Amino acid sequence: MSAPLLLADWGTTSRRAWLVDARGKVIASAQDRRGMTTVEPGGWEAAFGELKGLLGDAEPRLSLLAGMVGSRSGWREAHYLACPVSLSDLVDELCWVEPGAIAIVPGICILREGFADVMRGEETQVLGAVAAGLVPRDCFVCLPGTHTKWIEVREGQVVQFRTVMTGELFAMLQTSGTLATQASGLVDAGPDFDAGVDRGLESGSPTADIFAVRAHALLDTGRIGNGAAYLSGLLIGADLRTGLAIGAHPTVEIIGRSDLAALYSHALARAGRKGRTIEGGMAAVSGLKHLAELAE
Amino acid sequence: MSAPLLLADWGTTSRRAWLVDARGKVIASAQDRRGMTTVEPGGWEAAFGELKGLLGDAEPRLSLLAGMVGSRSGWREAHYLACPVSLSDLVDELCWVEPGAIAIVPGICILREGFADVMRGEETQVLGAVAAGLVPRDCFVCLPGTHTKWIEVREGQVVQFRTVMTGELFAMLQTSGTLATQASGLVDAGPDFDAGVDRGLESGSPTADIFAVRAHALLDTGRIGNGAAYLSGLLIGADLRTGLAIGAHPTVEIIGRSDLAALYSHALARAGRKGRTIEGGMAAVSGLKHLAELAE
Repeated sequence: MSAPLLLADWGTTSRRAWLVDARGKVIASAQDRRGMTTVEPGGWEAAFGELKGLLGDAEPRLSLLAGMVGSRSGWREAHYLACPVSLSDLVDELCWVEPGAIAIVPGICILREGFADVMRGEETQVLGAVAAGLVPRDCFVCLPGTHTKWIEVREGQVVQFRTVMTGELFAMLQTSGTLATQASGLVDAGPDFDAGVDRGLESGSPTADIFAVRAHALLDTGRIGNGAAYLSGLLIGADLRTGLAIGAHPTVEIIGRSDLAALYSHALARAGRKGRTIEGGMAAVSGLKHLAELAE
Repeated sequence: MSAPLLLADWGTTSRRAWLVDARGKVIASAQDRRGMTTVEPGGWEAAFGELKGLLGDAEPRLSLLAGMVGSRSGWREAHYLACPVSLSDLVDELCWVEPGAIAIVPGICILREGFADVMRGEETQVLGAVAAGLVPRDCFVCLPGTHTKWIEVREGQVVQFRTVMTGELFAMLQTSGTLATQASGLVDAGPDFDAGVDRGLESGSPTADIFAVRAHALLDTGRIGNGAAYLSGLLIGADLRTGLAIGAHPTVEIIGRSDLAALYSHALARAGRKGRTIEGGMAAVSGLKHLAELAE
């Protein structure tokens, strides 16, 4: 029986990896906080060795890595391909660290007059979800997170996308500055979240609207009970306002962590759309597996 | 000859104070970083004593303080008055720390169904500028800064206003997170600033647009030479987009620091408006002086 595949989604702050046997079955998996930012220059081979160790002692026949591992500050730079991009385009442009043995998946970009955007890692999840039949070949996808991605897929190709820095801004505002006192709590999808979402969807002024968290507290209005939920709702509402502008699809496929997916799904309902959730790891494994098949 | 007035604009992180003689002439002034956040609970009298010391050894006949010194975390809470508010409304609601001797100017608020906003300190500058004839009794004012304020004045009253967290967000994004590497430089009103302003004015998606700073760098497009200027322009453009929505006036009175005023004035020109700058200290002294006259 042939050696397994090693597949990894290696991001900025964490990584996930899977060992997949010849029949496509996951036989081991691992996850840790050893993201790109923790790897010293020159330390990538060792960090990859550790990752192999986490999955047991099998020597993989092929290792395929997606995510920030392929950025300029990663192991080896895998260039950004311009949209539209299919799974086979990604295979054609794999960046081989060790020919035939270890490859990194390229990112995707959009570059037009006055507009630029990039992704790295999400392309593998989205096209993987398409390849596995988890989402249709024509669909609209949201990957919520530090940098939320909204992605339009047509005939199995990523044709356009947009990044919104929702998670990063939320984390910054929660941990320091004027709003931190009111917004440091846990987010739930209650009435404060809803009020924030509605405001974010309608307003187009998030850099002003967020101040409401502070103003209501100073005025003791009692109208925002959970400042974290209101702030999260506001930023997610603004996120949807931007993302939904590029896709008119009634259903949005949400690929990601279940807690975030639930908040986005809830917010999408307020925008008159339906959210359907696909677990991110499953999408990533599928994408990497299909890429490996095409590469071999 | 009677004792002088002590007037102070005592904010979150710094304070400015003036000693004004019986003829209304400034005879001493001081400025330091002893803002509200540096004063321990119970330490306000001592901090005020220091301030008096900075201005010489004259015992003022009346001390009038505006700004965050009147907030819940300040010396004594001076409540927020609901718009519309005139100078004489502020006098009627002065918060006397020491009757007849030391008073704090109240803030202003707006509280409507689904909307709340507050200011503290800016009301004194704006109404002071009106009282001194530095701006018309009907005008539209911008006070750029950590929390930019856009204020509509009608017949010498503040009738409505809006806060935008431009300076705070810019500082956060410059010092940490994904954009910091590209946006840590100095801002100038060059082509990158202009491009940011135009985008901010037109888009309504600042939480997405800011990612352009990162995307252009990763793609080596060379189109954003000064990331700090682009980011600043983008946030100021979004600020204008929000602020100008509440005032159709062709001229905007900018009260503030000359460097910020220059950037806002430049950005306003791109939005088809004219900015006219009034120095913030002059406006504050005028406001406090007029308040003192009415209070005596």
